[in-house]
Amino acid sequence: MNQLIKDNKMSRQSMRSNDPKKVSGELFTLTYGSLVAQLLKDYENVDDVNRQLERMGYNIGMRLIEDFLARANPGRCYDLRDTADKIQQAFKLYLGVSPSIGSWSPGGDEFSVVLETNPLSEFVELPDHCLGLRYSNILAGVIRGACEMVQLEIMAWFIADQLRGDNVTEIRVKFVKRLEDAIPAGED
Amino acid sequence: MNQLIKDNKMSRQSMRSNDPKKVSGELFTLTYGSLVAQLLKDYENVDDVNRQLERMGYNIGMRLIEDFLARANPGRCYDLRDTADKIQQAFKLYLGVSPSIGSWSPGGDEFSVVLETNPLSEFVELPDHCLGLRYSNILAGVIRGACEMVQLEIMAWFIADQLRGDNVTEIRVKFVKRLEDAIPAGED
Repeated sequence: MNQLIKDNKMSRQSMRSNDPKKVSGELFTLTYGSLVAQLLKDYENVDDVNRQLERMGYNIGMRLIEDFLARANPGRCYDLRDTADKIQQAFKLYLGVSPSIGSWSPGGDEFSVVLETNPLSEFVELPDHCLGLRYSNILAGVIRGACEMVQLEIMAWFIADQLRGDNVTEIRVKFVKRLEDAIPAGED
Repeated sequence: MNQLIKDNKMSRQSMRSNDPKKVSGELFTLTYGSLVAQLLKDYENVDDVNRQLERMGYNIGMRLIEDFLARANPGRCYDLRDTADKIQQAFKLYLGVSPSIGSWSPGGDEFSVVLETNPLSEFVELPDHCLGLRYSNILAGVIRGACEMVQLEIMAWFIADQLRGDNVTEIRVKFVKRLEDAIPAGED
């Protein structure tokens, strides 16, 4: 979808500068707010907006992972706990917040990313007609897109949101399967 | 337009924290790219996209100025050179880049904000069918919206853009008039 951003340009740039560029959280919040407001204008119902935000995030995640691999040199994930650690690290690197990871399922295939503060929604109040809106759904998409690029199919969805009166903002991540397609023949 | 972001919440927050929150430039660039891509899908022609980006920026500028006043404590502008200095300062604060100010008109009512690098368009390549797109037009709108909130009507528009092969990205700013409406009766 987002064909304006060229993958190769992005990873080249990341490799060059170890010093990540920063922009203000306020500007980011306002720009993201403009994006959500535009989608609310474009689509008939909030479910479509939620879906579109997730798709945008998926596309962003697919590109951001290259930058993350180049910059954070995170090493291989051997299990889902490793993956959770990298997600935590990426939130710090890209959003400047440190979520906690927890609420593991007994089978170890599901966990929560819990944000005390969410830079995306910091100054936001949802009007009454948008109560079904998953305002920050782009984040769920980013996690899914980024994981898919490293051969990990996951599901990610919001189960709590401070915008809707919850104490924290919580994204649930569930392992689905390893994607084997991209592994070269000969390796397992 | 962007009624999701509450003014009062934003300025309250700014007052509280002197330490501005930062997010990664890459994430910002990709999110802005999603916004532009969405508008290109929504509108029939790039002129409408340019207009819409400027309007979004105008709304963002009207809100961001509060944050700027609270955070940078910039003092009053006595002439357009002061204003240009504050704009330069705001680019540093919000986008992490330091534009140069120059190319003053003989009458001193027009100047340029010149960016060597533009965080909005860093990994972007315009497809052929978007050559008329003013990709970063949101910035022109932000300047206009922010100035208007401090009783300064200006025009701002791009006259050069690295995305279109120019050496630098250059925004021209032209003084239009002082807005007197908001000055309390009794003062001049």
